[in-house]
Amino acid sequence: MTKSIEGLKAFQRSLGVCYYPEQWDRSVWQEDARRMVEAGIKWVRIGEFAWSRLEPQPDKMVWDWLDDAIEILGAAGLKVVLGTPSATPPRWMIDCYPDMLAVDEKGQPRKFGSRRHYCFSHAGYRREAVRMARLMGERYGRNPHVAAWQIDNEYGCHDTILSYSNAAQVGFRDWLSQLYGSIAVLNEAWGNVFWSMDYDSFKQIELPNMTVTEPNPSHVMAFRRFSSDQVVRFNKEQADALRELTDAPLIHNYMGRVTEFDHYDVGLDLDIASWDSYPIGFLSDRLEESEDHKLRFLRQGDPDFQAFHHDLYRAVGKGRWWVMEQQPGPVNWAPFNPAPLDGMVRLWSWEAFAHGAEVVSYFRWRQAPFAQEQMHTALLRPDHVEARGLLEARQVAAEIAADEALQAPAIVQAPVALIFDYPSQWAWDTQPQGADFDYFRLVFETYRALRALGLSVDILPKRGNLTGYKLILAPGLMTLEGLALSSTDATVILGPRSGVKTEELTFPMPLGPNLVGLDCTVSLTQSLPPSVAVPLDICGHGGRWLESLEGDFEVVAKTQSGEAVLVKNDGKWHYLSIWPDADAWRAILTPLCAAEGIETVALPDGVRLRDTANHRFVFNYNPEPVKWGGETIPAAGVSWKKR
Amino acid sequence: MTKSIEGLKAFQRSLGVCYYPEQWDRSVWQEDARRMVEAGIKWVRIGEFAWSRLEPQPDKMVWDWLDDAIEILGAAGLKVVLGTPSATPPRWMIDCYPDMLAVDEKGQPRKFGSRRHYCFSHAGYRREAVRMARLMGERYGRNPHVAAWQIDNEYGCHDTILSYSNAAQVGFRDWLSQLYGSIAVLNEAWGNVFWSMDYDSFKQIELPNMTVTEPNPSHVMAFRRFSSDQVVRFNKEQADALRELTDAPLIHNYMGRVTEFDHYDVGLDLDIASWDSYPIGFLSDRLEESEDHKLRFLRQGDPDFQAFHHDLYRAVGKGRWWVMEQQPGPVNWAPFNPAPLDGMVRLWSWEAFAHGAEVVSYFRWRQAPFAQEQMHTALLRPDHVEARGLLEARQVAAEIAADEALQAPAIVQAPVALIFDYPSQWAWDTQPQGADFDYFRLVFETYRALRALGLSVDILPKRGNLTGYKLILAPGLMTLEGLALSSTDATVILGPRSGVKTEELTFPMPLGPNLVGLDCTVSLTQSLPPSVAVPLDICGHGGRWLESLEGDFEVVAKTQSGEAVLVKNDGKWHYLSIWPDADAWRAILTPLCAAEGIETVALPDGVRLRDTANHRFVFNYNPEPVKWGGETIPAAGVSWKKR
Amino acid sequence: MTKSIEGLKAFQRSLGVCYYPEQWDRSVWQEDARRMVEAGIKWVRIGEFAWSRLEPQPDKMVWDWLDDAIEILGAAGLKVVLGTPSATPPRWMIDCYPDMLAVDEKGQPRKFGSRRHYCFSHAGYRREAVRMARLMGERYGRNPHVAAWQIDNEYGCHDTILSYSNAAQVGFRDWLSQLYGSIAVLNEAWGNVFWSMDYDSFKQIELPNMTVTEPNPSHVMAFRRFSSDQVVRFNKEQADALRELTDAPLIHNYMGRVTEFDHYDVGLDLDIASWDSYPIGFLSDRLEESEDHKLRFLRQGDPDFQAFHHDLYRAVGKGRWWVMEQQPGPVNWAPFNPAPLDGMVRLWSWEAFAHGAEVVSYFRWRQAPFAQEQMHTALLRPDHVEARGLLEARQVAAEIAADEALQAPAIVQAPVALIFDYPSQWAWDTQPQGADFDYFRLVFETYRALRALGLSVDILPKRGNLTGYKLILAPGLMTLEGLALSSTDATVILGPRSGVKTEELTFPMPLGPNLVGLDCTVSLTQSLPPSVAVPLDICGHGGRWLESLEGDFEVVAKTQSGEAVLVKNDGKWHYLSIWPDADAWRAILTPLCAAEGIETVALPDGVRLRDTANHRFVFNYNPEPVKWGGETIPAAGVSWKKR
Repeated sequence: MTKSIEGLKAFQRSLGVCYYPEQWDRSVWQEDARRMVEAGIKWVRIGEFAWSRLEPQPDKMVWDWLDDAIEILGAAGLKVVLGTPSATPPRWMIDCYPDMLAVDEKGQPRKFGSRRHYCFSHAGYRREAVRMARLMGERYGRNPHVAAWQIDNEYGCHDTILSYSNAAQVGFRDWLSQLYGSIAVLNEAWGNVFWSMDYDSFKQIELPNMTVTEPNPSHVMAFRRFSSDQVVRFNKEQADALRELTDAPLIHNYMGRVTEFDHYDVGLDLDIASWDSYPIGFLSDRLEESEDHKLRFLRQGDPDFQAFHHDLYRAVGKGRWWVMEQQPGPVNWAPFNPAPLDGMVRLWSWEAFAHGAEVVSYFRWRQAPFAQEQMHTALLRPDHVEARGLLEARQVAAEIAADEALQAPAIVQAPVALIFDYPSQWAWDTQPQGADFDYFRLVFETYRALRALGLSVDILPKRGNLTGYKLILAPGLMTLEGLALSSTDATVILGPRSGVKTEELTFPMPLGPNLVGLDCTVSLTQSLPPSVAVPLDICGHGGRWLESLEGDFEVVAKTQSGEAVLVKNDGKWHYLSIWPDADAWRAILTPLCAAEGIETVALPDGVRLRDTANHRFVFNYNPEPVKWGGETIPAAGVSWKKR
Repeated sequence: MTKSIEGLKAFQRSLGVCYYPEQWDRSVWQEDARRMVEAGIKWVRIGEFAWSRLEPQPDKMVWDWLDDAIEILGAAGLKVVLGTPSATPPRWMIDCYPDMLAVDEKGQPRKFGSRRHYCFSHAGYRREAVRMARLMGERYGRNPHVAAWQIDNEYGCHDTILSYSNAAQVGFRDWLSQLYGSIAVLNEAWGNVFWSMDYDSFKQIELPNMTVTEPNPSHVMAFRRFSSDQVVRFNKEQADALRELTDAPLIHNYMGRVTEFDHYDVGLDLDIASWDSYPIGFLSDRLEESEDHKLRFLRQGDPDFQAFHHDLYRAVGKGRWWVMEQQPGPVNWAPFNPAPLDGMVRLWSWEAFAHGAEVVSYFRWRQAPFAQEQMHTALLRPDHVEARGLLEARQVAAEIAADEALQAPAIVQAPVALIFDYPSQWAWDTQPQGADFDYFRLVFETYRALRALGLSVDILPKRGNLTGYKLILAPGLMTLEGLALSSTDATVILGPRSGVKTEELTFPMPLGPNLVGLDCTVSLTQSLPPSVAVPLDICGHGGRWLESLEGDFEVVAKTQSGEAVLVKNDGKWHYLSIWPDADAWRAILTPLCAAEGIETVALPDGVRLRDTANHRFVFNYNPEPVKWGGETIPAAGVSWKKR
Repeated sequence: MTKSIEGLKAFQRSLGVCYYPEQWDRSVWQEDARRMVEAGIKWVRIGEFAWSRLEPQPDKMVWDWLDDAIEILGAAGLKVVLGTPSATPPRWMIDCYPDMLAVDEKGQPRKFGSRRHYCFSHAGYRREAVRMARLMGERYGRNPHVAAWQIDNEYGCHDTILSYSNAAQVGFRDWLSQLYGSIAVLNEAWGNVFWSMDYDSFKQIELPNMTVTEPNPSHVMAFRRFSSDQVVRFNKEQADALRELTDAPLIHNYMGRVTEFDHYDVGLDLDIASWDSYPIGFLSDRLEESEDHKLRFLRQGDPDFQAFHHDLYRAVGKGRWWVMEQQPGPVNWAPFNPAPLDGMVRLWSWEAFAHGAEVVSYFRWRQAPFAQEQMHTALLRPDHVEARGLLEARQVAAEIAADEALQAPAIVQAPVALIFDYPSQWAWDTQPQGADFDYFRLVFETYRALRALGLSVDILPKRGNLTGYKLILAPGLMTLEGLALSSTDATVILGPRSGVKTEELTFPMPLGPNLVGLDCTVSLTQSLPPSVAVPLDICGHGGRWLESLEGDFEVVAKTQSGEAVLVKNDGKWHYLSIWPDADAWRAILTPLCAAEGIETVALPDGVRLRDTANHRFVFNYNPEPVKWGGETIPAAGVSWKKR
């Protein structure tokens, strides 16, 4: 009944930490290593921002300090994750390649002085990054202490995927010419006859910024695909260089709700996915939720946001994934930065483990007393004194150590699959049609509705293997091409806004969703302001998006005024034409799950479950204790039972 | 008692549609034409964005497709409105004139990739636009099917009037030197002694953008006048070229609430005014109204916004006007894009006809499956299937056809004249003094107050003929120069903020309004935040703007604390010193109308009237039926009675 | 018990006015002078924007009109304040130095066309400004009518301190190289090892704008210090030039809540400080207060904002200070511009005098009928008619004249000292950590809490003389270096956020506040969103900022959940770890004042006191009369009693 996810090997749960030996006097490294080990930490990530100390001037390498650091850490019993430092090219690099800087949408260069100051399309800098990766691989690729590699750091952080540089323009023209072959094909595909936007040659095509009003959505969509491909190539070039020099797994640490490039594509060239989890920062910064919700979970983070990413990166990592950076206390970068409730660092760690994380690695060992992140707390204070986070990390380490069953978990396929597709994000960013239509939000709210019913969920790419699932959802999926529905007998819910565009972001003909087996056409589309809540006959409301459906189908749910919002064929395929609220989602999902024999439960607000092969975990994100399932889970508490 | 408006000839009410043969396979043109005629459509507008298909490379003309399209449409019985395509210069044009692009306020060029990518001041592009107009005129000027011409498309859409280009700077200096003759005169007129802003020569004058703090308002006002004049010249050059080659009327299609150029001035060179009416898009995008109001009229549009523009363009067209583009269903460009209530497309069409439209032309025949407006609905869906809009258009056509009296209406002079003056908009944009002071809003709220009393209104330019009116209002009119009050014995209401500036946007001396016959001086001006509502002794409140008045006058209305807000001379001339709310307007207007023998009625919210010579029309903008005048008007319904 | 403030000489209270003879026909100067004198005005400020009329072309000086104006004004009995016109370089100056313009954060030049269009770092323009000052000094330095000088006008108005020009970049590198000596020292001090931000040479350092994400806070802090130093040098160069040529006092007129440069530093080179007081404009534009508060004091201005600046500039002027520009009626530059309540112009004048102003000078004599400030009212209307402000000015003059005790006051040291420190403002601007953390606001709310208890307050720079005070507060003081606490036996309250950084904006080691005598360490810092109000055990709430404290201290106040928020040593030194609301401040201050024998009183909302050596003034900022202290103070009224 529960089978292991493809590609997932046996593994041990363990803890890690991020460490910056170059920022501290050499005299404390040994003691730091000792304290890490004492706390139960197994992994230590280093090096990913150290380029200026490894190569202070062009081609003058300084390896000794890193040699020593690896030796000290390794000798203490720690496994090292070594980062390539391409996220922080040193200042002299800009002198070599003044045009390597990314350029913002207004045409301004994004200057040196922080990090990620490079354009992915710049060939010269790509060569430098590969050169550095190769030098590090040559020196440490066979070092026994170096047990994994991280390439670059947080692609896309600080909005760094889209660059309007000259290098990007040159690259985009080349990319287009390879894709379309002739300019006539491009003109036809984009509908450039509209507003006389025809081009005579690829050389005339500029980047889609600073136009008088919005540019052709096909133009923008092509630029979004191109930009994602630049990241894939950038990453692959370093991965290829390292592959020849090491057998240790290659990892990248993605950032929460960064959607400007296709993480699955990058993941294909790596062995393990990881992400950087800052629950409290994300709550205030990256979630469209009510002020009430944000106040309630102020010190705990959203109950679903981390889980969503855990499940997403399990897919990106083809089963293998880590939390590379785990928030340990207040951060410095959100609008407001409160401290976690006591217990939350432990809870977050266990939530990650329950979703299959091999490693949870805290950011960072000791708080820096200087520079941009000096207000970002760590496991130690700047004065080396232990901070709250270390206490909880130590507890997690002890809990793992104390129970063999917890050490080597088996992650099983969930009953529910939810499709998350990066190009769909780009499509609806490009052409929202309703001001607050956001693809991530749509998928995330679907995920939250599933979690609120106690369900474990697998997130999949559009071309993922659908076999074995009982319920499959694909809201907002711009095209259905590659979605292997015919391979499954699951209950399927498409929509809203699924299958209604071509890959070029134009209308398909016939109109979508064009699904063989479900006679249903979207005949009219409306976007609705937040003040409009359309009452449904089942329960709850819909809003924001409303498609009129035409065809020979059975109506499962309607608006109270009689318009079909959930329809099905004579099998189990559904199309949903409205964006449901939480009540409506519950009313839709509960009977469909029951029909598939998927158990659902009514969970109190802020309580969440996650099942592994051997355990059921219960997480209480509330600031007060909650009784559920015959037990009382403390505020910010987690409990687990053997299954 | 009801006389025809000057210049208004007899005409037939008819329907039209906007069509893009270049966007569709030639094989469907014939069938499209047949279906248009079948639906009762008489006019078809084509060509206005087709430059890249008419001249794919410089001087290589391709006429055959347009020849055929005109022939097919004409042969089917349709009259063609042919557009000059100067709103969409092809990409190669930018290679010829890289500096033809407009430049935004921050100094950035507004690039190719959408439309309206030209600066009105650029001499090279103006020549190209005239060349193209002449080529089209030479080929189709005497074509029997081409029954009207449209020049360019929606001047000013996407904020394209003000350009800070080099061409504009050169042009502005020349314009100033011609206006002022010597730099000393300019320095004196602008008060450049203030802050040492004196110039030594016209060559030193830059455009009024990017200054440290706000530039001299006289400087800005001159630039606003200059910018408007550039549009007038641009339009006139094409009009002059076409005049020699055709006898068909020349038209431009203005856009709702675009006020950056003087539409009356452009209209002087044309035969018919038209505007593009998108009631639902405008409601959410271009009206300062409460969320409640916007929610109530979400699917109907504002009850007065279209009527205001109908009455405005009747003046701009010197009596002759069309709706060139009528919303047929959801659009793509507003923040949210719901569908109209059933009946609204018909209602909007009849509202236009009731105000004197000769033609109501729907935008567009068939929804484009690609490019920027692919989500803009049409009379047909992208797959050629009939959409809701066509059904209602067909009904309107049938209603006209069925009743001879409705076919050839007589528009009569209204009892009330309301002055709308573009330079006043620029003046208060330049120097609002209160953050939310907007001239359009002030005039529009005055118009709404009149409509709410059941009144038909004529909108006039400041220099319009005032004879025959019983009530004349001129709120916010920056100067009174040219307002021929002495020609009338009407009741007059000036103010707030009328006659208080010179044409240069300085203070007149003596202080305004300086009206011979009304001894009243504005001695002090205050702007008030939205939280302040000043209770009046008559009824309702005023706010936002409050002038203290001095002089020998009779006080008609006061604040409850005793400050005069409406005063009059011993005749019928009034000055109003506060911005009234709806209740206050009713209390002001009702007795003045009664004294003039103008009938007013109490209308339910959302119900509006409009009188022609032979009919009284009643429009119900509400989403529910309303009983009024002894009948029940359905939701989104219109009724009419013979007078 | 009450001693005079150091440096404060005996003086007379008198009134002044700002006048622009160059803007009016010469024929009215004489009559203007006569009317000023008649109203009781003693001082007249002229010349500060007149460069284009003094030097219409390079080196072509035109002195005659200014000679005459000074003679006419002086002959009428007025003392002249003569301004150097460096705030408004004429247009020809830009032709001489095209790169003298400041550059904004986005890299765009800030063009000619208003005022303050220069970069403080530009050597060429600095020379020109000094040349002009010297020419004026040579001509008028010994003129008996010229009794004071104003240098430039409102440094920093319109955000003009920070410039990202090439001149600034060159200057910054030089400034850094002098400060740090070697690039290695700078790298170490700034922590440039973080994110590989190390520099190889000073030439690589750019200005901290347009970076990908935020730049190193040490980098920004250095740029803020540098930028302040540029203003100090700019001012000093003119002061030095004038010193040789005149014995009259030198003044600058600072602007309310402009904090981008160190006013104390500028003040060291001048004899008198002055500021420009626009209570109603500031209320809407520069205060973070509730809409209710802003509505209540709409026509009066905030009850503490002016007093705060009065007390601040008494310190900046080392005891001598003026109001150089006093709002006389509605201004033109706030979002909304209502008129003051009758009485407020008098009240504001007396509030300034009560705080020690030698001169209160109204802006301006007559309203300009043209240019940017034409809607700014004055003592006369543009048509020379007397406005409300003049009536109240005349009353103030009469009140002074009528009572000898009011003419020559003695300002005494207050019982309470409050530290205001410009670098702390820059530090928390650079690194707010909580989105709404603002240093000025923190100090101002502290000041308001003191005023609400009826206290008179001295504001001091960090290095000010603390002797003689009973209560000393230093909230938000980034470092304690230079704060001479050991010289005092006062009750001291530090915090929140005091002593927690180095001058470089890094963490001190050991962690702050590092106060010998108070064993207290900030072990954790949190910022909290506005929705969080932490209830305290004393009374009221805290929020926004919360520090966890560690050490051997006595807890004076706690949160209701038990966290220490006010602690003390065994003496009278306190550290406060939360941002208190008004109730909490009252609960904190009242017992501490009592213990020090400082009398506090409960004042009605909007009522304020100020004590001089001989009088107690009571100000009623409310729009209705208030009974207090046995008398009824009228709305907008002031009363005083001998002490």
